[in-house]
Amino acid sequence: MKRFTLLRSRGGPSTRAAMLFTGLALCSLPAWADEGMWTFDHAPLAAIQQRHGVSVAPEMLARLQAASVHVGASASFVSPQGLLLTNHHVVEGCVARLSSAQKDLAASGFVAQRAADELRCPGFVARVLQRTEDVSARVTAAAATGADDTARNAARKSEIARIEKGCSDEAQGLRCEVVPLYSGARYALHHYRQWDDVRLAWAPEADAGFFGGDPDNFVYPRFALDAALMRVYEKNGQPHQPAEHLRLAATMPREGELLFVSGHPGQTERLRTVAQLVSARDVGLPLDLAAARAEIAALHAFSATSPEAARQAQSTLFGTENWFKATQGEHQALQDPALLAGKRQAEQALRDAYRQRGLPGDPWADVAQANALNDKLQPQLWGLSFGYRTVYAAAIDLVALPHERGLPEGQRLAAYSDAALPQFERRLLAEAPFYPALETVRLASTLQRSLDLLGPNHPYVQLALAGRTPQQAAQALVAGTRLGERAERERLLQGGAAAVAASADPLVVLARAAWPLRRALKLQAETEVDTPIQRAAERIDQARYTLYGHSVPPDATNTLRLSFGPAQGYVSNGITHPWKTTWGGWWDRADSFDQREPFKLAARIDRARGQVDPRTPLDFVLTADIIGGNSGSPVVNARGELVGLIFDGNLESLGGNYAYQDHTARAVAVHAEAIMAALEKVYGATALAKEMRGNR
Amino acid sequence: MKRFTLLRSRGGPSTRAAMLFTGLALCSLPAWADEGMWTFDHAPLAAIQQRHGVSVAPEMLARLQAASVHVGASASFVSPQGLLLTNHHVVEGCVARLSSAQKDLAASGFVAQRAADELRCPGFVARVLQRTEDVSARVTAAAATGADDTARNAARKSEIARIEKGCSDEAQGLRCEVVPLYSGARYALHHYRQWDDVRLAWAPEADAGFFGGDPDNFVYPRFALDAALMRVYEKNGQPHQPAEHLRLAATMPREGELLFVSGHPGQTERLRTVAQLVSARDVGLPLDLAAARAEIAALHAFSATSPEAARQAQSTLFGTENWFKATQGEHQALQDPALLAGKRQAEQALRDAYRQRGLPGDPWADVAQANALNDKLQPQLWGLSFGYRTVYAAAIDLVALPHERGLPEGQRLAAYSDAALPQFERRLLAEAPFYPALETVRLASTLQRSLDLLGPNHPYVQLALAGRTPQQAAQALVAGTRLGERAERERLLQGGAAAVAASADPLVVLARAAWPLRRALKLQAETEVDTPIQRAAERIDQARYTLYGHSVPPDATNTLRLSFGPAQGYVSNGITHPWKTTWGGWWDRADSFDQREPFKLAARIDRARGQVDPRTPLDFVLTADIIGGNSGSPVVNARGELVGLIFDGNLESLGGNYAYQDHTARAVAVHAEAIMAALEKVYGATALAKEMRGNR
Repeated sequence: MKRFTLLRSRGGPSTRAAMLFTGLALCSLPAWADEGMWTFDHAPLAAIQQRHGVSVAPEMLARLQAASVHVGASASFVSPQGLLLTNHHVVEGCVARLSSAQKDLAASGFVAQRAADELRCPGFVARVLQRTEDVSARVTAAAATGADDTARNAARKSEIARIEKGCSDEAQGLRCEVVPLYSGARYALHHYRQWDDVRLAWAPEADAGFFGGDPDNFVYPRFALDAALMRVYEKNGQPHQPAEHLRLAATMPREGELLFVSGHPGQTERLRTVAQLVSARDVGLPLDLAAARAEIAALHAFSATSPEAARQAQSTLFGTENWFKATQGEHQALQDPALLAGKRQAEQALRDAYRQRGLPGDPWADVAQANALNDKLQPQLWGLSFGYRTVYAAAIDLVALPHERGLPEGQRLAAYSDAALPQFERRLLAEAPFYPALETVRLASTLQRSLDLLGPNHPYVQLALAGRTPQQAAQALVAGTRLGERAERERLLQGGAAAVAASADPLVVLARAAWPLRRALKLQAETEVDTPIQRAAERIDQARYTLYGHSVPPDATNTLRLSFGPAQGYVSNGITHPWKTTWGGWWDRADSFDQREPFKLAARIDRARGQVDPRTPLDFVLTADIIGGNSGSPVVNARGELVGLIFDGNLESLGGNYAYQDHTARAVAVHAEAIMAALEKVYGATALAKEMRGNR
Repeated sequence: MKRFTLLRSRGGPSTRAAMLFTGLALCSLPAWADEGMWTFDHAPLAAIQQRHGVSVAPEMLARLQAASVHVGASASFVSPQGLLLTNHHVVEGCVARLSSAQKDLAASGFVAQRAADELRCPGFVARVLQRTEDVSARVTAAAATGADDTARNAARKSEIARIEKGCSDEAQGLRCEVVPLYSGARYALHHYRQWDDVRLAWAPEADAGFFGGDPDNFVYPRFALDAALMRVYEKNGQPHQPAEHLRLAATMPREGELLFVSGHPGQTERLRTVAQLVSARDVGLPLDLAAARAEIAALHAFSATSPEAARQAQSTLFGTENWFKATQGEHQALQDPALLAGKRQAEQALRDAYRQRGLPGDPWADVAQANALNDKLQPQLWGLSFGYRTVYAAAIDLVALPHERGLPEGQRLAAYSDAALPQFERRLLAEAPFYPALETVRLASTLQRSLDLLGPNHPYVQLALAGRTPQQAAQALVAGTRLGERAERERLLQGGAAAVAASADPLVVLARAAWPLRRALKLQAETEVDTPIQRAAERIDQARYTLYGHSVPPDATNTLRLSFGPAQGYVSNGITHPWKTTWGGWWDRADSFDQREPFKLAARIDRARGQVDPRTPLDFVLTADIIGGNSGSPVVNARGELVGLIFDGNLESLGGNYAYQDHTARAVAVHAEAIMAALEKVYGATALAKEMRGNR
């Protein structure tokens, strides 16, 4: 799930979106019955009972909350001695830091046979949400004292800081945070207890935990043991004894059984209006996909010229295909007419209510207006784009950096904040191989795109091509540039505006002309598209709360939420996918690729063929509404017993950023039986397994 | 592969298309290097040597041809005693006919332990192509004697009949057929020897041969033992001893190894021009997909209302999803910019050459013109469509049949030929359950489509909706109709035009108004689109032969062809697919679905877990250019040794109808090792296995 972040950096303006979900919509849209990342204090228990005939005891939720842990991502206590279950990919960084050239734990895996063997993960902090408290009145009252927006913001900020400070107590491991919900319509004070001594108890090999590697990321059917165990320690060096922990389910789930997920989804953008979704479907994403398709085709053609060319293109090709894969997932979600119909219906209901209440203005119209401009700007912005990590992109950075740095932060483009500048510099100064033929192919594809989108008479196209074909122009530009050399990039970076202005490097010359054109467009997009949309979205979100209250869940805020949905297979792209996979399927996936990386089995997993019944479940899918940040979330049954561990969403779930649907979108989990089989039959982690089973 | 036929009934005008493949294109388009269903007498051996470094002996091809058999689909001799290898789905009809209520061979599978146990398949004819002969001069000379088109056609026909009769000899099992290639630019006389005593020797259970059922049709990764053995007998009751048979490969293939396929591809349509492909991509297929999506969404919503509703909708939903799946496969193929670029380049080359040779007119312009009209007609035709096998479609048939039958055949719409009429009647008189709620949902979806595509002011829409929503109109129409009753349909069918004109059934009343509107559109499409495109396509195809000769293969004609390509995995829709699957994966696919149909293992296959090594290959994919009719084709290595058995193409290969590409399109084959493991370790067919191994 870690690559969910990939989606954030793409697409149009970075607005947030909310699924507007009324009681009315529930009746007519049974297929989306299980939307929602709910706060625990407003879990829709009655609706669950009504829809699924499953009765959830409030005590079950209280115990689940007490056993749920935040460790950056999500986790849960699974023993009375503070044993913590999370994903292999959550502890991956820790495993790397604990490894040395002599002892590569990522390659070998790690099992602590006794507590004394457990290894502390530097920087890891675990925290448990004790309770939440509604402090909206205090925050809102404080803000009301301000005379203008700036003063109100400052008053709000300082009241929040006062509240947080008032109940935090570092020595006791108590920490408080005020979380704005519904874009600030509500403020919830979160009381946490936290620990900074978290130790690694078990991590499988990378070839087991991340089996399938990047190619299988977002992919289902999936075969990965993306699980690990840690332990939380008190300051006195004794294991923490949590008030609650999750017990293994006595009966493992069947297909169709309603399950619950408790975790920390990071951020959703479900406030996008229908106009925005339609335009993403018809304008934004098709532009992205066309760009990706053209680059992939060019890279494939280049790769076919020789094995060495294929090697050079490989990582770019993979990255582009991965981007294409994620974008296609989003695009396909938006092509579901039922999804848009549901959005439309909910939006209309909220809009009608908004008007009837006499709330000010029409934020949907504001969004639509800004969005229409965005539709016009997008092709031009794509026409004035310069490739991802190309030598031409470096030329643009060299031109842009001194220019933006020379402006006060408030006047720069958003991407060039003080905080972001070092990242640009690091990228420019990184040692990277320079393959002229590959750069030529990529530049030709970029120039072809400019020609297609801007037309032959656009000043930039005239300048860039100068009567040549994109291929010819790219050849000349790459042949003439010295920006492939790190030293030359460093010289220009250090030399600043003067050095850049003096350079006769053909790519720098072109970048000097291209950058102002792109900057003007980008500035227009920020002021006339992003800002008005952001403001309108806040008004919509706050109105939503005013009108519907807690009957609709707030957008995700990286705090504890409850999701739910049945374990269920699905049909996508014509392929029927089962609700679970097995260890036999794991071995098959490796054997089918002749155990070529990243489909090579860890030696222990390969040897386990005799020990583990091939019918043992490995991973499974459920319809619960999750997103990045849910990695490591426990999956429990209606009795609150552990049945699995979330570690990814499938490709089709990538539309979840702005809308939930459950025809094909699925959360992907490791099956609890797979974890126990691994501990008991593969890793010889008998003590840990016994601890999880409560010595049963 | 049997569902390849599904594609034929959809889409725009039924033109044929050809991939124009010049030496020039070869150099710039290495990715499509292996296009072509080649006649054996013009196999591109030099190109294979050059591209793949693999030298193919002409003797290998001669032996392969002699061992290749036509049995409706494809097959091959695999022993000196006339043993014939083909697909399970090729013998499925025979197995059904040999079964009885007491003895269900489809369920139990069938193994003949001795030749005496083999069961004759009624109606099966096997034939082997002995040689071909160029009779173009004779046919063309005969045609030239005609004064006009009609006379020329008649002269051609009778010369062909004369040639065929002159060398056929039923008593000797010799049969001759003249096959037009390149739309009649060449005529090849095919000399066959044929046998009508073909007996079943081994067929696995349907749950093994057709494992995964319809859901896994067109799907890869695939897990099916789609293989069977038959034996060819001489008239004297002795097994036929073929001149050549295929021997099992001593070394099984590795990923990347170049392999060869010998079989009988039925029909390709690779003459479509770029204009047609672009319009299929941008107009025709999106309309199809939108219609399918809307119907699928409606059926899903209906299914969600109750388990009984889900049961009623199931088969329609599945059929629609299958259609969507196939159409999506075609659409995705056309979105590959490299595919269109290649087409465009080849088309331009041929067009230039056409003009330089002073050939008459510009058939591409003719196609483009007809096609532009087609783009306008398609949305209207979809707007005036009435559902697939709905009660409304029955009403339309009842109105259309007497009208068309009353016209001379030449003046009817093409679909209503004398030969086709009984089929319409059978469909109307079939006993089929009538579910009013389901019909209402489907009719509402149809009416919504008419409203969307034709607009609220179109006379048909006005009449059909009469101020109601599509939902309300559908409800009233279905509530009022009696066409759900077979007796009422029969009464109207027997009563003909008079009975139909007198009916007050609301669906018949609506159909009486709708049919003339659709008929006029359809007639316009046939005369102004289909006919001119067909004529232009013939001219293009003949010019292609005149200019390029046999360096480009002719479109498929259901005669023996050679294809080739490496065994190779691929990445599609973000999923990385291996080049082969294993028996372990087969068991996983069954276990992952909890062995629910159609993923239930045949009992013997389930029990084989102890006997067959799970690493044993089951199925595999290769890039060879195949299409419907290739079912049962042997796959051999460069030495002509048997390594597999074609049984399907993947979803991505569905674009193969009008263009070959090898990024993701794949032929799917049973691995020869899987067949031997099945015979030796699962079915106890020791004698048959020994026979195939040559008693090794």
